[in-house]
Amino acid sequence: MIDLYTDATANGLKISIALEEMGVEYRAHQVNLGGGQKTPEFTAMNANQKIPVIRDGDVTLSESGAILYYLAITNGQLIPTDFAARSKVMEALMFQMSGLGPNFGQLIVWTAAWSNDFPVVSERYQKEVLRQFSVLEARLGNHEYMGGTEYSIADIAFWPWIHMCHTNPVGQTLPLGNYKKLSGWYEKISQRPAVQRGILVPTPLAPEIQYEAFLSAVVGLGDLHK
Amino acid sequence: MIDLYTDATANGLKISIALEEMGVEYRAHQVNLGGGQKTPEFTAMNANQKIPVIRDGDVTLSESGAILYYLAITNGQLIPTDFAARSKVMEALMFQMSGLGPNFGQLIVWTAAWSNDFPVVSERYQKEVLRQFSVLEARLGNHEYMGGTEYSIADIAFWPWIHMCHTNPVGQTLPLGNYKKLSGWYEKISQRPAVQRGILVPTPLAPEIQYEAFLSAVVGLGDLHK
Repeated sequence: MIDLYTDATANGLKISIALEEMGVEYRAHQVNLGGGQKTPEFTAMNANQKIPVIRDGDVTLSESGAILYYLAITNGQLIPTDFAARSKVMEALMFQMSGLGPNFGQLIVWTAAWSNDFPVVSERYQKEVLRQFSVLEARLGNHEYMGGTEYSIADIAFWPWIHMCHTNPVGQTLPLGNYKKLSGWYEKISQRPAVQRGILVPTPLAPEIQYEAFLSAVVGLGDLHK
Repeated sequence: MIDLYTDATANGLKISIALEEMGVEYRAHQVNLGGGQKTPEFTAMNANQKIPVIRDGDVTLSESGAILYYLAITNGQLIPTDFAARSKVMEALMFQMSGLGPNFGQLIVWTAAWSNDFPVVSERYQKEVLRQFSVLEARLGNHEYMGGTEYSIADIAFWPWIHMCHTNPVGQTLPLGNYKKLSGWYEKISQRPAVQRGILVPTPLAPEIQYEAFLSAVVGLGDLHK
């Protein structure tokens, strides 16, 4: 039985979706991002004080990308067996972790949390996120899924971030529909039953409360909020 | 024979250091970041137009974290065999890719490339980088290396970024010496012969030219430079 410490942020939802896809038994524990990630108990699991974290027997693991890798390998699912194909999935996963996640996060930081006090700064991140959407559009022109010809943990890593183009006030300002392959990929994955189950873990709070929690948690904001 | 397309940035140096550590034969091709990463030939290798990229037979791979994983597995080096230990190395690698790299990059963007036009913005990234230094200090309090008890690709991922505290004008303003375990780890790794060879690939340009290239390339700056 896996214990999942999480909240309904883009990085958190990756793991509940992956666990639902794999049919793995788990218990979800909601971590209130207004401070729940800074308790001594949580800090002992992740010194970086960020969700998601899993415990699986003796293994305690943070970083959503590492958890996806761990779950895929231990369950033999959602990652290709062929090593060259597997490496391309890792490439896509790393691009999500190092590129789209941090930049989308900073876009929300400066546009929402800092109330767009520095339009040049917000604009930089918006341009960079849209440039990355173009890169994803190019990837999906070559193969059906983010990491290649199979649905994989790379798709699960990207989906909750693209989902914010529908659910997050800042994300809603981005013209996702202009990226035909990306928006088609998004719609296709949205219909998967495991995805529909995964986004309900943990039980969603009211949208405005969830959004406040997201603001307080987004990419290292924490105490740095003005 | 591996072909490595790279430049002397933190992400590029990870790969030349890893190849030197593993004793793998390779050819380095310097990609001039003033535009070399935007040619049709390079874009065909990486639609995201960033170095490093490797070609190994039929495999073309981008994202420094994915390349480190690929090299470690194919060569059976610098990653633990035990899967739980391996997962902790992946956790540290993901933290470097998603955390320290993007935030240190943005610190340089706003402090140097944008000439500190927005001190509040620069300050946010400086605080976040120093917070992450504290997280690394805590990790190194538990075990000797970033990913556990063995030197691994996680150390190689972090080292060139910490190295910038000595070589980069923005990095030099950070008080690395206040983080005793982190600076001790840095010094220890610096003495490895493979690291000393790796940082010379590609052949360094004059510091001011390299710094300009770094500015033009850092974390999605590209065309967005004012």
